[in-house]
Amino acid sequence: MKPKKRLAIGVDFGGTEIKMGLVEESGRLLDAFGFASCEADTRPKWFARVGEGIQRLAHGRRLCGIGIGVAGFTDFKRGLIHSMLHVPGWTNVSLARLARKQWGLPAYVDNDVNAMAIGECAYGAGRKYRNALLVTLGTGVGGAVVIDGALYRGAYSMAGEIGHMSIDWQGHRTPEGRGGLETYVGNRQISDYAVRAIRLGRHTAISRLVNNDLKAITPRIIAQAAAQGDKLAQEIFDFAADCLATAFASATYLLQPQVIVVGGGVAQSGTVLFKPLRMHLKERLSPYFAERIKVVPARLGQQAGMIGCAALVFGSKHRTKEMSSAKSHMLRIRY
Amino acid sequence: MKPKKRLAIGVDFGGTEIKMGLVEESGRLLDAFGFASCEADTRPKWFARVGEGIQRLAHGRRLCGIGIGVAGFTDFKRGLIHSMLHVPGWTNVSLARLARKQWGLPAYVDNDVNAMAIGECAYGAGRKYRNALLVTLGTGVGGAVVIDGALYRGAYSMAGEIGHMSIDWQGHRTPEGRGGLETYVGNRQISDYAVRAIRLGRHTAISRLVNNDLKAITPRIIAQAAAQGDKLAQEIFDFAADCLATAFASATYLLQPQVIVVGGGVAQSGTVLFKPLRMHLKERLSPYFAERIKVVPARLGQQAGMIGCAALVFGSKHRTKEMSSAKSHMLRIRY
Repeated sequence: MKPKKRLAIGVDFGGTEIKMGLVEESGRLLDAFGFASCEADTRPKWFARVGEGIQRLAHGRRLCGIGIGVAGFTDFKRGLIHSMLHVPGWTNVSLARLARKQWGLPAYVDNDVNAMAIGECAYGAGRKYRNALLVTLGTGVGGAVVIDGALYRGAYSMAGEIGHMSIDWQGHRTPEGRGGLETYVGNRQISDYAVRAIRLGRHTAISRLVNNDLKAITPRIIAQAAAQGDKLAQEIFDFAADCLATAFASATYLLQPQVIVVGGGVAQSGTVLFKPLRMHLKERLSPYFAERIKVVPARLGQQAGMIGCAALVFGSKHRTKEMSSAKSHMLRIRY
Repeated sequence: MKPKKRLAIGVDFGGTEIKMGLVEESGRLLDAFGFASCEADTRPKWFARVGEGIQRLAHGRRLCGIGIGVAGFTDFKRGLIHSMLHVPGWTNVSLARLARKQWGLPAYVDNDVNAMAIGECAYGAGRKYRNALLVTLGTGVGGAVVIDGALYRGAYSMAGEIGHMSIDWQGHRTPEGRGGLETYVGNRQISDYAVRAIRLGRHTAISRLVNNDLKAITPRIIAQAAAQGDKLAQEIFDFAADCLATAFASATYLLQPQVIVVGGGVAQSGTVLFKPLRMHLKERLSPYFAERIKVVPARLGQQAGMIGCAALVFGSKHRTKEMSSAKSHMLRIRY
């Protein structure tokens, strides 16, 4: 008789949607569904809805735990949400502890980008690689670093913020510094590039695709125009690709990963993004680095978060790569 | 009876000087001397001179090995020099194997910046920290990444090239990309800033310090002028500090180390560099990152290389953090 496969629930707790899935240890998503975050806008409602979801997905089968990925600032070790970006009521909440108490299951809480990175690196585009950089393109630019097969959280659990890496030391000022990557290639910045150009009188298929409603322009629309050969749209993707390539080159010089996995909405544009991205990255690296670095699209798409959350459960026995910063002490170097 | 302390020889093999030291496992340099690289400009002469040096330093005592740090491109695993920057005759030389054969001692070969990083992190300014970034300022800008107490070599042994990180996506073009940090803050670039300003008629104490011989201007002279309150000299250090801060901020967002250790000639300028450097770094990071990152000067100075080379020997039983890139394979993620 074959041993039973271990099962876990992954909950991708975003600002607009909560997605839940039942995942096998092989990474296969057996069943999933989602609901609007506003349907669970208090803590009791959240526990009720997610609890129903667990029952519906498990269907009486034994679960080995639940992993929750949160669009916010979390402390993985303590299973804590420090704060969520667009959802009130979750500041300083020990969600892992509460979930364990509520459902009697091992529970883990992590940042959603980390969960996605774990999903992609354990089961998706990064699964063949031991060290990788994962980047998500969306409203902002998120990232995660995988070293030696382990998510690297840095000394104080916030490593991987590639979106704040500067590509221009005299660039836009923000609370995060100057010239941060995401101030050039966030969804909004990409759309604004098109709006500005159209207002300056540029002719483009983009206008037609949105029936001249400039507010309706999104990176997806621009990608569609670029794929049809529209010059402005291609120029915008070339610009975004070159900005990304600048930060990717810097990260490659610093970390020399085997692969950079690019996910999120804009990354679904395919060749329109990846062709100029690979070209510019090559231009921006010396041959030794250029020949060795791969840039690939994420594979798990919308499921990466759920699968990665479940992987938090399956991998829970393994050590974390978080540095014990509180107890830093004299140490013999290993190399 | 106290157990005997282990001893190793560290050889810092630079383009102009070869420095050799006898080092205790505690990191203490017991004895050292140096000679001009041109006195050992063929391979037989090199082995003869270094062999004499070993005898002189060991003085009949038992050695547990020799570590050699090379100003060039090396493969630590294979003990190989791919090439040296300013010394002919060392292309594709299995130096570790030859040294083992010649002297019957375990031998290790590494890049000199890695050796210095190991020295500083095991015994110097980084010894209290488990993850650190080490940066050396000189003709170029070198770097090394320490993660979890181990030198991190990246997937293909070339990680840590902070000098090629871009601080301006539309900056100077070089074979390494565009806007690389070292094209702004290399020794030459810093001196050239002063020369240009003086030619444009700026009054500065720098001119007096070099008796109007502009070719004699070095970062050390500029630092001297800055320490005396010279406005141009301070402006130059503020510029260099801000460029460095840009790359340091990017590296901090990506890796979140506990500390950045800064060594090399320009770093010996002290407050003149570190004060604006810490200020600009703070401006370029959000509070969560700014409050946690430390920037400290290297402590071992000219000895870091020799001590780090010896540490290559003492640490040889420990695993390396190099990724097994050749044999990358499907892997369960750990986190």
